[in-house]
Amino acid sequence: MTPPRGFPPEEFRARTSRAQTLMQEAGLAALLLTTEPEVRYYTGYLTRFWESPTRPWFLVLPAAGGPIAVIPSIGAHLMRQTWITDIRTWQAPDYADDGLTLLADTLREVTPPDGQIGVADQMESHLRMPLADFRRLEAALVPRRIVSDAQITRRLRLVKSAAEIAKIRTATAIANRAFDRVPEIARPGIPLAQVFRDFQRLCLEEGADWVPYLAGGAGPGGYGDVISPATDAPLAAGDVLMLDTGLVWDGYFCDFDRNYSLGPPSQDVADAHALLIDATAAAFARARPGARIHDLFHAMNDITNPGGSGSDAGRLGHGLGMQLTEWPSIIPQDDTLLEPGMVLTLEPGVTLPGGQIMVHEEDILITEAGAEYLSAPQSPDIRVL
Amino acid sequence: MTPPRGFPPEEFRARTSRAQTLMQEAGLAALLLTTEPEVRYYTGYLTRFWESPTRPWFLVLPAAGGPIAVIPSIGAHLMRQTWITDIRTWQAPDYADDGLTLLADTLREVTPPDGQIGVADQMESHLRMPLADFRRLEAALVPRRIVSDAQITRRLRLVKSAAEIAKIRTATAIANRAFDRVPEIARPGIPLAQVFRDFQRLCLEEGADWVPYLAGGAGPGGYGDVISPATDAPLAAGDVLMLDTGLVWDGYFCDFDRNYSLGPPSQDVADAHALLIDATAAAFARARPGARIHDLFHAMNDITNPGGSGSDAGRLGHGLGMQLTEWPSIIPQDDTLLEPGMVLTLEPGVTLPGGQIMVHEEDILITEAGAEYLSAPQSPDIRVL
Repeated sequence: MTPPRGFPPEEFRARTSRAQTLMQEAGLAALLLTTEPEVRYYTGYLTRFWESPTRPWFLVLPAAGGPIAVIPSIGAHLMRQTWITDIRTWQAPDYADDGLTLLADTLREVTPPDGQIGVADQMESHLRMPLADFRRLEAALVPRRIVSDAQITRRLRLVKSAAEIAKIRTATAIANRAFDRVPEIARPGIPLAQVFRDFQRLCLEEGADWVPYLAGGAGPGGYGDVISPATDAPLAAGDVLMLDTGLVWDGYFCDFDRNYSLGPPSQDVADAHALLIDATAAAFARARPGARIHDLFHAMNDITNPGGSGSDAGRLGHGLGMQLTEWPSIIPQDDTLLEPGMVLTLEPGVTLPGGQIMVHEEDILITEAGAEYLSAPQSPDIRVL
Repeated sequence: MTPPRGFPPEEFRARTSRAQTLMQEAGLAALLLTTEPEVRYYTGYLTRFWESPTRPWFLVLPAAGGPIAVIPSIGAHLMRQTWITDIRTWQAPDYADDGLTLLADTLREVTPPDGQIGVADQMESHLRMPLADFRRLEAALVPRRIVSDAQITRRLRLVKSAAEIAKIRTATAIANRAFDRVPEIARPGIPLAQVFRDFQRLCLEEGADWVPYLAGGAGPGGYGDVISPATDAPLAAGDVLMLDTGLVWDGYFCDFDRNYSLGPPSQDVADAHALLIDATAAAFARARPGARIHDLFHAMNDITNPGGSGSDAGRLGHGLGMQLTEWPSIIPQDDTLLEPGMVLTLEPGVTLPGGQIMVHEEDILITEAGAEYLSAPQSPDIRVL
């Protein structure tokens, strides 16, 4: 059953309130948010217009009260449909002052002169505004200082609410159905680029709002990497085809892949696929509150790469939600404690005797009792087309 | 006829060489590039994997010789398929040192101690790496200084090569065909969200590699904005439906919209559409080498908004190419001189008597002789479904 779109205002109020508690602990008088997921997390402002790099967008989260949107006027109509009431706009792009005075005035209004303003500055973050403007902002705010945001938004986003989980569940169910229809679109002689186009079409037909991510590969005995766009090379009998999609429903992603053999698989391919499923199942069995992320890494790596410490991919899975990939990373160095409400991908990979690779991926939810597959867990037997 | 994918290595060599000439003029010993279009412009590295925010990617352009890729190992296989030969990798994500030492070493190797390293820091730019890492990098490079990139990449990208134009032309032709098929998917009773899904499907069927952008609206007498995602509200007789797509072919965008009336249009809607087409035609007639961007603004604004100076949209069109929107912005303050090879959108808007808006958009190429429509120019009569 498809959940409702959007969130009730209470969800945004709760997120804001939790952030303000953490801000107080961290000694922050305000947060300055500049990226799509940060702005959306506190407002519900959902638009594909971020694809345009022209205009900066700002959200100011004060120590008390609701967030303040400082945005280009083109976005005011849509922002007024969210729970945000304090919306300040300028007509962007403005070559002389692209929202900077408005932003500085807003930050001065809500922070004391000795206040600290937090911005995301750690791994997986960036500042979505021109660097020269950021430097001007820092100067304009003196004696206020811009400092690290203590990863407050990141910490909050790590654990998903029931409403968020319902959206991710919807996205994964759509992709499950699309993957089941791949026999309609893939057979020897069809160019891989055509398969990619058709697979995106299947995702849309099954209910995706849009398909921000599709990668994959095809070749005898595996593929060369997992991030390439498609070429026009035709599929051939004996190829392994892999499709990895991040489709979106109401702003939330799934991220998992499926492998297919065109015709009966070679023994190497059959064995590799079974090994990947074993590894995924081992990590799934370890995944429960109280375990740590590195436990999942070792559960998989002990099977796919015994004695080895890593691979080119750099990790064996990651968080998932408003973005295709979120923290944490499933690597030996990550000791994040699993909690109910975390959504993760398990993504082991193997190198085949011929030098090609195969990668498998599932999406899971950490529950009170252990874990639950959101994507449909696969059989050890690779799907045969 | 579909052009070949990719570019010959000579194109990348020419881009690199032109950048190096401008670097010498600007006193820059190297450029540091961090965003998708910047890295792709000099390398041809095309992947949707940038959707994942986890890993930073770096390209260093030295004063002489080819660019150096400093990238996560997951991208090495794909980068090796480009013309880049100097590829330095680390296993990302690395919580202790996420490529920073490798990047600093590379920059020190190719720049003298008193050298200046340019990064994009002006409008429409951002630095795609964690701010804390950037600050560490600045400290590690002393006495070298990181300064503005003199907008070198932006200046080069403003004028498209014949091969780039062929890709944009292909993208616009695909969208033309998809827009012609809208009667298949839109009629009263169909939810707007379904129309959005189906329209993306049509774009794929007509040859789009992917559809990074679709916005639009529907309502009696126009719509509220041009950046909203779809709702599940059904179309109704008398609605104006607008679809605005940025689809991609081989890494290049189109960006234009079409308006449709569900049933015969009201006089207000008919008049508004005719006015938008008049305004577009007036700007098109002014568009030729030697004219300036603000001439196009006034040509449109004098018709849609006589005596007025702007609108919520903030501009009446923009550049187009590797990104959905590029510089320049068609605003009164932009005095960029038009040159053959520039690709622009003309995007006038009007407010209807009922307070709703309508926007029209076409894509044009500046030629030696004047301008050429890349999208199929529309009749003053709004399309009727």
